[in-house]
Amino acid sequence: MSRFSLNQATTKRWPMEDTVAGCVAAGVTGIGLWRDQVDTYGVERTAALVRSAGLDVTTLCRGGFFTADAWREDNLRAIDEAVTLGAPVLVLVSGGLPDGSRDIDGARQRVADAIAGLVPHAQGAGVQLAIEPLHPMFASDRCVISTLGNALDIAEPFPADAVGVAVDTYHLWWDDQVWAQLARAGAAGRIACFQVADWITPLPAGVLLGRGLPGTGCVQMRRFREAVDATGYTGPIEVEVFHEDLWSRPGQEVLEETIQRYLEHVV
Amino acid sequence: MSRFSLNQATTKRWPMEDTVAGCVAAGVTGIGLWRDQVDTYGVERTAALVRSAGLDVTTLCRGGFFTADAWREDNLRAIDEAVTLGAPVLVLVSGGLPDGSRDIDGARQRVADAIAGLVPHAQGAGVQLAIEPLHPMFASDRCVISTLGNALDIAEPFPADAVGVAVDTYHLWWDDQVWAQLARAGAAGRIACFQVADWITPLPAGVLLGRGLPGTGCVQMRRFREAVDATGYTGPIEVEVFHEDLWSRPGQEVLEETIQRYLEHVV
Repeated sequence: MSRFSLNQATTKRWPMEDTVAGCVAAGVTGIGLWRDQVDTYGVERTAALVRSAGLDVTTLCRGGFFTADAWREDNLRAIDEAVTLGAPVLVLVSGGLPDGSRDIDGARQRVADAIAGLVPHAQGAGVQLAIEPLHPMFASDRCVISTLGNALDIAEPFPADAVGVAVDTYHLWWDDQVWAQLARAGAAGRIACFQVADWITPLPAGVLLGRGLPGTGCVQMRRFREAVDATGYTGPIEVEVFHEDLWSRPGQEVLEETIQRYLEHVV
Repeated sequence: MSRFSLNQATTKRWPMEDTVAGCVAAGVTGIGLWRDQVDTYGVERTAALVRSAGLDVTTLCRGGFFTADAWREDNLRAIDEAVTLGAPVLVLVSGGLPDGSRDIDGARQRVADAIAGLVPHAQGAGVQLAIEPLHPMFASDRCVISTLGNALDIAEPFPADAVGVAVDTYHLWWDDQVWAQLARAGAAGRIACFQVADWITPLPAGVLLGRGLPGTGCVQMRRFREAVDATGYTGPIEVEVFHEDLWSRPGQEVLEETIQRYLEHVV
């Protein structure tokens, strides 16, 4: 259990205080926080709550969306929030194509340019930006970075302590190049965080809320964990699942099932 | 219009005789046939119908699904049907993971092994098998071959006149490696067919019927067509769109819109 971290999205409707207390009660020592939840509870207040509970904040999700208005101010603020919360990593979901645009090369260049502009602030703050490749089914509307290889290409010009990648099994499991790219990521010291969720079908409309807990789908969870470990990564393993069925269940019950499945299928 | 071909899936509910007559009336000279439609009308009867109408059959869709019972007999029969229909190409949708399996490497090896066993019959028949990479969102349940690069890796051991690849914009548009892989495919003479459809969001539940006619989404249609042409491919361009809204409209009306959008966005 020492590397287990509950990503708060898995129990999205569990109030912040209950989530933190529930983690402590279950012997969980790490939590991945989401900015919308943190904002609702208050940044300083969340920082004090997790600190007094002895929880490590493993990631803050999420920055990015470089196509949105005021993206730069929002990402600078997200870096500052990560500092306040003690999160070493800010996960970046880079955004899709601008409205009406088909220029995917241009959109990828825009991601690289945006990150270049954030690096000095991230380095000064001691926060590592983690470019997260999202599944290609999100390429047009959420994230034009679709593979670990492309994420590493974009990260490469920057120091590894400033820009890494987020490895999430849900987004990457289908890619026959992923094993080689994991080795590349590890060799460069760029695995900023490791998240797990399973792939289940059929996908729901909109495809965002179709993930499964580890062991409920077809992803080779243990193979991924071993491949990530083989690169020298020793950091936390977050379970991050989005599914309406999970969100409608009591948080403590979901956390217990999450831990049980993690122990059975991931470690 | 000389390279335009109507893939029959675009007007799925249009009866065979109406489809053929509609193509002739619209000045269309090529058609991509689907086996379920052909079986309903009769293989020999379809062959006679398209021949007397002067239509070229550009592809037969589809073989593959190497996880199904009796896949080998079914694929041998599909090759024979292609010969009867005068289709130079049989498109292969390779199938997903076997029920309950997570072994994606094994599933890909099984595709390679299955194709190896079909090559002699395909070569004898003069039919080129076209491995179609499907979008990664179909990797678990329809096709474990998700990229053009992986399709070419599997095709590589076989003669190009026996095993090529199907290039479909809908499945490949998101891949930052696709331009390099198109050049690789063309240099090896492996582009067996070129199909176009556009990417639109939000995706519907099940994600199968979410395609758009060219110009309705975010795919760089002309860039794809030019990249395919630049490899030396001079063959037909099929428009193949699966969408309930299209299927519920009169076939002739859909064909007319398809042609108009093809002329505006593809050529």
